Amino acid sequence: MAGVDFSQLPGVPLTIEGSWVLHQMLRLRRPLDPGVAGGALELLARLEGENSAFYSLLGHKGDLMLVHFRPTPDALNSVEWELSRLALWESVDVVSSYVSVVELGLYESTVKEYAAFASQGVEPNTPEWQEAVKDVMARQAQAMAPRLHPRIPDAPYVCFYPMDRRRGESKNWYTVPMPERQRMMHEHGLVGRRYAGDVKQIITGSIGFDDWEWGVDLFAGDPLVFKRLIYEMRFDEVSAVYAQFGSFYLGIRKRAAQLVELLSGPSRG
Amino acid sequence: MAGVDFSQLPGVPLTIEGSWVLHQMLRLRRPLDPGVAGGALELLARLEGENSAFYSLLGHKGDLMLVHFRPTPDALNSVEWELSRLALWESVDVVSSYVSVVELGLYESTVKEYAAFASQGVEPNTPEWQEAVKDVMARQAQAMAPRLHPRIPDAPYVCFYPMDRRRGESKNWYTVPMPERQRMMHEHGLVGRRYAGDVKQIITGSIGFDDWEWGVDLFAGDPLVFKRLIYEMRFDEVSAVYAQFGSFYLGIRKRAAQLVELLSGPSRG
Amino acid sequence: MAGVDFSQLPGVPLTIEGSWVLHQMLRLRRPLDPGVAGGALELLARLEGENSAFYSLLGHKGDLMLVHFRPTPDALNSVEWELSRLALWESVDVVSSYVSVVELGLYESTVKEYAAFASQGVEPNTPEWQEAVKDVMARQAQAMAPRLHPRIPDAPYVCFYPMDRRRGESKNWYTVPMPERQRMMHEHGLVGRRYAGDVKQIITGSIGFDDWEWGVDLFAGDPLVFKRLIYEMRFDEVSAVYAQFGSFYLGIRKRAAQLVELLSGPSRG
Amino acid sequence: MAGVDFSQLPGVPLTIEGSWVLHQMLRLRRPLDPGVAGGALELLARLEGENSAFYSLLGHKGDLMLVHFRPTPDALNSVEWELSRLALWESVDVVSSYVSVVELGLYESTVKEYAAFASQGVEPNTPEWQEAVKDVMARQAQAMAPRLHPRIPDAPYVCFYPMDRRRGESKNWYTVPMPERQRMMHEHGLVGRRYAGDVKQIITGSIGFDDWEWGVDLFAGDPLVFKRLIYEMRFDEVSAVYAQFGSFYLGIRKRAAQLVELLSGPSRG
Amino acid sequence: MAGVDFSQLPGVPLTIEGSWVLHQMLRLRRPLDPGVAGGALELLARLEGENSAFYSLLGHKGDLMLVHFRPTPDALNSVEWELSRLALWESVDVVSSYVSVVELGLYESTVKEYAAFASQGVEPNTPEWQEAVKDVMARQAQAMAPRLHPRIPDAPYVCFYPMDRRRGESKNWYTVPMPERQRMMHEHGLVGRRYAGDVKQIITGSIGFDDWEWGVDLFAGDPLVFKRLIYEMRFDEVSAVYAQFGSFYLGIRKRAAQLVELLSGPSRG
Repeated sequence: MAGVDFSQLPGVPLTIEGSWVLHQMLRLRRPLDPGVAGGALELLARLEGENSAFYSLLGHKGDLMLVHFRPTPDALNSVEWELSRLALWESVDVVSSYVSVVELGLYESTVKEYAAFASQGVEPNTPEWQEAVKDVMARQAQAMAPRLHPRIPDAPYVCFYPMDRRRGESKNWYTVPMPERQRMMHEHGLVGRRYAGDVKQIITGSIGFDDWEWGVDLFAGDPLVFKRLIYEMRFDEVSAVYAQFGSFYLGIRKRAAQLVELLSGPSRG
Repeated sequence: MAGVDFSQLPGVPLTIEGSWVLHQMLRLRRPLDPGVAGGALELLARLEGENSAFYSLLGHKGDLMLVHFRPTPDALNSVEWELSRLALWESVDVVSSYVSVVELGLYESTVKEYAAFASQGVEPNTPEWQEAVKDVMARQAQAMAPRLHPRIPDAPYVCFYPMDRRRGESKNWYTVPMPERQRMMHEHGLVGRRYAGDVKQIITGSIGFDDWEWGVDLFAGDPLVFKRLIYEMRFDEVSAVYAQFGSFYLGIRKRAAQLVELLSGPSRG
Repeated sequence: MAGVDFSQLPGVPLTIEGSWVLHQMLRLRRPLDPGVAGGALELLARLEGENSAFYSLLGHKGDLMLVHFRPTPDALNSVEWELSRLALWESVDVVSSYVSVVELGLYESTVKEYAAFASQGVEPNTPEWQEAVKDVMARQAQAMAPRLHPRIPDAPYVCFYPMDRRRGESKNWYTVPMPERQRMMHEHGLVGRRYAGDVKQIITGSIGFDDWEWGVDLFAGDPLVFKRLIYEMRFDEVSAVYAQFGSFYLGIRKRAAQLVELLSGPSRG
Repeated sequence: MAGVDFSQLPGVPLTIEGSWVLHQMLRLRRPLDPGVAGGALELLARLEGENSAFYSLLGHKGDLMLVHFRPTPDALNSVEWELSRLALWESVDVVSSYVSVVELGLYESTVKEYAAFASQGVEPNTPEWQEAVKDVMARQAQAMAPRLHPRIPDAPYVCFYPMDRRRGESKNWYTVPMPERQRMMHEHGLVGRRYAGDVKQIITGSIGFDDWEWGVDLFAGDPLVFKRLIYEMRFDEVSAVYAQFGSFYLGIRKRAAQLVELLSGPSRG
Repeated sequence: MAGVDFSQLPGVPLTIEGSWVLHQMLRLRRPLDPGVAGGALELLARLEGENSAFYSLLGHKGDLMLVHFRPTPDALNSVEWELSRLALWESVDVVSSYVSVVELGLYESTVKEYAAFASQGVEPNTPEWQEAVKDVMARQAQAMAPRLHPRIPDAPYVCFYPMDRRRGESKNWYTVPMPERQRMMHEHGLVGRRYAGDVKQIITGSIGFDDWEWGVDLFAGDPLVFKRLIYEMRFDEVSAVYAQFGSFYLGIRKRAAQLVELLSGPSRG
């Protein structure tokens, strides 16, 4: 890459996208008629089979979080309408949500490939350039197909939060030269790699779909690992200087039947 | 334009305006009496014929988005009152909205024409200058009439978001010299042009009408294009440094009859 | 004014105040019993005669805006309690409001008079100075009496928004020397003057009464003029650098009888 | 104080505290059963005798503001529970509140006494220093007892707002050297003194108790004085650069019987 | 530590974690059926025995705060579900909450141990380094076991607030070199130590679990001490420059039986 003038090349890193994802945070209005939970079991069980997962949330930001991975936004929207027709839904407020799509960011490939195109004399944003980019993306999408359309991991704990890259008046990610960004993302990735055995991470992109730029789902068997990982990352350059975070949600996995049991518990007192 | 001292000319770019536009984001309170949706069909179908479009939204920010293009604000307001009289409306909360007017920004013409006026010795803000400006605007309005009063595109997906130009303490769009702004807007436009075949964009202005300065509607057949376009633009100078964004809404087009069907679906569980 | 050292004089511009003003933004809960609107007619008509005006708002920020000009805050408060006793009010949420008082800012006089006092050797904040200031204010209040207690203009459209002068860490209006502020306010006024035939503007002050420093009401026959005026002003120095804006409300004037008719419309569907 | 190196002394100004204060902003849900107001009279009258005051608020931020001064937080909390048991409370939403304690800031004494301690060779934060500080505070508390436990002034108008000292990235009150802060507070006090005949001011501290650092209550016979005083202060250095303000509340005093009458007014229309 | 180049060592201070903690802020909807409070007594008393504590809050941010310390997040979540099944819960809105885990920050040990590792030639983030870190943490966890799993102190008053370390554009805690941070935390600790006899403090960490980075609980017999401590700390460097605070909650301890009594009080008026 030596000798390549990146300031003359597009600054946008390539990304490839997979499943569409909806997070729904629900609050329940009490009392819950015990029958309504049972009436939801069939649909919940079917959704679970179609790659949805259910979590009991800690704290007042929601009682439950439903996470749905689907091939299209239309399929996600159908899930929303189906749920809304449950008798249970008369006692549900969907108090938050997140709409995004599984995204693999290709900072390393982008820098390498753009440099290669440039050294072959391909001019940015010409049809030839576009074609070359399309080839790269197709190749990557094929190589990474399983990561683009993952099953929701089985882990008992989830941590979800949305985030942005900072666009401040003096610190602005979007004006940092590509090779600098690539270096910071690389170092950031090294931290994540040290936690690979303990945490499964799924990044989803939401530019144009929701109010933050990315969503992050972490799945683990030990919820303390979420804290350690995020705290350690908070000191790496890209997070310390350029990350801005939305709300954090901590959930405990519940299978459809467990969820119904939780909702059907006898009232007391 | 060489030799023209733009610091001595007005800094306001010319704009021309067309249809008035209202976006309404609706949340439904359950249960929905199945009859009420059917009762709304006649009005919804009529509104559709008058240049309204209906979208099912993803996520909790709304169940539906209604978009209305009309010749006057009074016509938009009538739509609001007519809808409010539907029995359906007793189960509707209008949780957000956006009031704006189709706007064509004329940065390129402004710079060219102001330079011409100046070289003809017309003094800014004299009656002569005002007259000359009025002529330019009338000529442009005529040339661009179809873009000022568009039919809502047929595309199956919509992406809507409001935005501002930054007025920060050190980065402030409104203190940037006109030719600089014109250059940045030109480069911004080049990105948009590369997506012209895939996305139809309608910009509406809302200074004085709503809480952000502009609204952006993107219409496409593939919703991933919204993400690619907005992400690519986020790296051009005018967006990277000067754009601030409100909430993003992603919707799926529903014709009046489909909408009623969606709302009339049998409850389950 | 040459030779006057304004840094040794008080930095507070003189203002004179007139009518007390309350803006009430209302949202209606449906269904509206058609009778309740009729029952409100008598009070609404009386308030209209006492210098209140009613507007149908565009968008979800409110269905209606009621604007009341009265001689005292007690009179405004009585209006609130009277309205609250209407049967209609059981279907009304007052979702926003603004409390302020008609204010004429006297930047030009202040600079001139303070300079005169100083050249006469009157020391700031002495009884002599206070007396001289009181005289100036009394003279101005007499000269401007009709502007201090205006009838609400008849125009069919209103635009209301609150605003602040910026108190940022590096750009801070309240630390700018008086003559600089006076110059910027003067230039700002020149823009406004060009719209004098098309827009009637009433500035109200709200320091100590509400959450922003000023409220601005614009009245016009063509609502596009609001956009042009505010956009043009956004480029003058005092607005570009020092103005911060709250929510914008766009309304269509309705007489008491029209309002009742609007609220009594038959439900449909 | 010449020769005292304040950078070697504690930067915390001494304060002494008196009555505990609770502001409650109430919104009423309509219709109000006329009987419930009458049923509240006995308790309201008793509270009034125990140093509570009631205000009718202008605008939608609340219909009423109740202000309670009591010797302890437990006494304030009892007032809350007593009010909550009123039948009236079923129609009340407590939409805001403020918890604070009457505070007299001793900037001038602090600087003087710390300088004296230092010149006597007392080391900061030694037992000897702590003892000396305790003596100063006890002496001051005795001298200022009536100001620490004031009756709520009789004035017909109140203006309440919370405020912070700015902790910005470049302008940060808490990093300004003590003598600088003392000087600015002194100048600030001079402005206040000019209004002493027209406004009675009570400052309460709320660090650790509520979301802002201080609450300010102004009491006056002419509500325009609130605007003049706060506007004039906005230009003194400590306010211009370091003050940040919360919401402003403007209220009209109502005695218990007047309040009940206000709430019992016949419904109309 | 002389000669150790901390810029080559990880910047993350070690922490050890103990009990999981949930704060629940409750608002009551009136009227409360007097029976429902009594029906809650058994569960409340059991929770109290399991290390929960109940507080009556001052102000509108909540009527009650329940604080639960438990060994696992699952145990906390069970408490939430159990409470939700009470008849009382039909009159409760959980309006806020905080999810965190008892955390002991080991800035001093971290600096000392990292320096030791470095001088022994252990390379950061090698297995050898990880092992050494794990040893340190295990040793510390054993030494500090009682502080990791504390009983909720008996004190009659509590003050709770969440906080962040600032990540501003120019002042950013996460880019400050480790020894600088260690020095500031040390000085901060000295202030706290002076209040050790009067206040018991429990710090909980919430990165990855809730929207702020830390929660702080202070327990005292005299609530004025909260104000003095926090005000004094506000002037030390780490707080003055780098601390950002959320909402403050002030509560009065109530045993289960007292709480039920409070809720069962006869309605009046």
